[in-house]
Amino acid sequence: MVNIAVMGYGTVGSGVVEVINTNGKRINQRVGDEINIKYVLDLREFPGDPVQEKLVHDFEVIVNDPEVQIVAEVMGGIEPAYTFVKRCLQAGKSVATSNKALVAKHGAELLSIARDNNINFLFEASVGGGIPIIRPLNSSMTADEIEEITGILNGTTNYMLSKMFYEGADYDEVLKEAQDKGYAERNPEADVEGYDACRKIAILSSLISGQQVDFEDIHTEGITKITKQDMMYAKELGMTIKLLASSKRDGDHLHAIVAPYMLHREHPLYNVNDVFNAIFVHGNVLGDAMFYGSGAGKLPTASAVVSDIVDEAKHLNRNIMTMWDSEKLNLQPIADTSKKYFVRIKGDVDAMKAHLESKFGPIEIVKVEGLEDEFGFVTDVMTEGTYEEHAKEFPGILHMIRVEG
Amino acid sequence: MVNIAVMGYGTVGSGVVEVINTNGKRINQRVGDEINIKYVLDLREFPGDPVQEKLVHDFEVIVNDPEVQIVAEVMGGIEPAYTFVKRCLQAGKSVATSNKALVAKHGAELLSIARDNNINFLFEASVGGGIPIIRPLNSSMTADEIEEITGILNGTTNYMLSKMFYEGADYDEVLKEAQDKGYAERNPEADVEGYDACRKIAILSSLISGQQVDFEDIHTEGITKITKQDMMYAKELGMTIKLLASSKRDGDHLHAIVAPYMLHREHPLYNVNDVFNAIFVHGNVLGDAMFYGSGAGKLPTASAVVSDIVDEAKHLNRNIMTMWDSEKLNLQPIADTSKKYFVRIKGDVDAMKAHLESKFGPIEIVKVEGLEDEFGFVTDVMTEGTYEEHAKEFPGILHMIRVEG
Repeated sequence: MVNIAVMGYGTVGSGVVEVINTNGKRINQRVGDEINIKYVLDLREFPGDPVQEKLVHDFEVIVNDPEVQIVAEVMGGIEPAYTFVKRCLQAGKSVATSNKALVAKHGAELLSIARDNNINFLFEASVGGGIPIIRPLNSSMTADEIEEITGILNGTTNYMLSKMFYEGADYDEVLKEAQDKGYAERNPEADVEGYDACRKIAILSSLISGQQVDFEDIHTEGITKITKQDMMYAKELGMTIKLLASSKRDGDHLHAIVAPYMLHREHPLYNVNDVFNAIFVHGNVLGDAMFYGSGAGKLPTASAVVSDIVDEAKHLNRNIMTMWDSEKLNLQPIADTSKKYFVRIKGDVDAMKAHLESKFGPIEIVKVEGLEDEFGFVTDVMTEGTYEEHAKEFPGILHMIRVEG
Repeated sequence: MVNIAVMGYGTVGSGVVEVINTNGKRINQRVGDEINIKYVLDLREFPGDPVQEKLVHDFEVIVNDPEVQIVAEVMGGIEPAYTFVKRCLQAGKSVATSNKALVAKHGAELLSIARDNNINFLFEASVGGGIPIIRPLNSSMTADEIEEITGILNGTTNYMLSKMFYEGADYDEVLKEAQDKGYAERNPEADVEGYDACRKIAILSSLISGQQVDFEDIHTEGITKITKQDMMYAKELGMTIKLLASSKRDGDHLHAIVAPYMLHREHPLYNVNDVFNAIFVHGNVLGDAMFYGSGAGKLPTASAVVSDIVDEAKHLNRNIMTMWDSEKLNLQPIADTSKKYFVRIKGDVDAMKAHLESKFGPIEIVKVEGLEDEFGFVTDVMTEGTYEEHAKEFPGILHMIRVEG
């Protein structure tokens, strides 16, 4: 028997218990042993819920019980999660977590403690919910240099942008609808400002570079400035707008960013809609691959946590996870990164085109019906530094959105 | 140092050598040891190619060298691959293979020999080329009952159907183009008749059911009967036509099929175009997931073979692969499986509708411009047995295509 403890009986925690109860027989076959939930840690009581008899309020019960070999941390937040996880690992217990904030901030240290103790710290659920991505990066794409990883990593904003694209709705309208449906929180900042996606791409960047990428260093823009009009231009161009979290190699440098992007119809991420997430990976020999699925939700996230528990139960005294070094990686400054830019500008095309092309190279002009006193254009490829410098000369610029691919 | 041998220096074999030469440093870091290609087995000579100095013509050299710990079998075909792989495993050497025919036919036995010898028989490259799917099923989706796995598993036919959809081309035309581009062979039977996809879905079905699924038992139809006109109807219905290889659980039964299907625009596989492959998986707690990438090609396939070699080098004396039992699984007869059917029929809608609805339930009628003396309709959900029985009453039926989802 392998005894486990679940720390936190909220949405994901109750999902973990449900998944183990529902699929226990198959799970035990795969482990080759019986998984037993010995404790559930939560400050609250759950009268009438069968979990009540396993409920403990004191973390010390779990960390001091030598029978507990695996702990699922599904509390969220940095503290007390960090202290609890660290003490569990130091006590020789493997930990599976869904906590992206914890992994982004303390991943390097926790991985290193796990390795020293010959146990495991796994976090499949911290990025992309139920989508297998951490484990494929760790054990499938091992023949490749990963040159790019670009994801739609936040379901709330993807739901909102999909609505704006398909229904022509405006930002405030779709935010309200997402809140009414429970997809967005009353305080939606973590989603709509890109903070959630930022922590997730920090984790993936650390994993592919082998060094700590601090999420604070990642240039992060949300979707709050995206308008109905922007989406009309995107459609006219045969594109859509998605909030992308991306990490790309440029020679010896790594460049990471979270921002809304215009995306061509041919891009594998173009058709990822509603609350779905997807992660596009480019390897130097593999070429393009994409992983798609439910990026959040109780059961998909719990499925990923339980798959980590299964892996840990199969490797009780063997460290299987690639580490990243705690030495910080310096990301390439955003001003040095190159791409195309979609720009909306006030004024008359014919009068301005020559001046614009003298700065932005050959441009692709786009006009949208109903927006008569402005137009849009897509620049040639240039660094953001160069773009910003030239943009200063055009006070009529209304909005700039980066173009992917 | 971990010594390996590559059996077969064709497309995939030379890719394996190239991947190890290109990414050797990163690969060795991941293994924690140096991967060294000691032998390459091929009957031919390759004068001028650096591989020449590692070339051997006699399999006995490899199987009798105790220094060789891992063998990549990339020769293809059943014999002599089967005999060679079996002897390597019996001699305590792990094997990585891209050979779908071998795995579909002898997978159960070879996995069992590997387990008895505490080594590994891995075959990530045998399904979906570079797309990680075997390993995710084996080690990521372990919290789930897999209820469905449906893939676009053949790049040649997907290229052809994409051309037919987007360019309105007819079958013979796109086949010729695919042959000219080298995507289809001069004898295209294995691709266009669905035999290739059939072996791949047999492997995935064995994996998710834990029992041997014989590819001969899988109902297999190719794309040779798909016409330009069928595609026009699909477009009119907001659908496309894809060659799907699918395995679904229905209560205690498993149902497997390879056939062209009409697919709704909302289905994640709808937008998988050209030579790309993708595999859709539905787990009972995970929900929907999809894996997308290059299903064939020298380097993507070699990337998957080398990822198996890395896994085997990290687990030299530890069996990590879930087995399936050699006891054969009896698939659900196709006549008992339920779905909707798209039907093209000669005649006049108004005259026939009542009769059709009395047999096929409420039907969705579709007319295509230019096809005046016929029409199409989509039936209600019913078993294939029932459909076939009713279809006998309508001699004007021109074509039936199953509808997915």
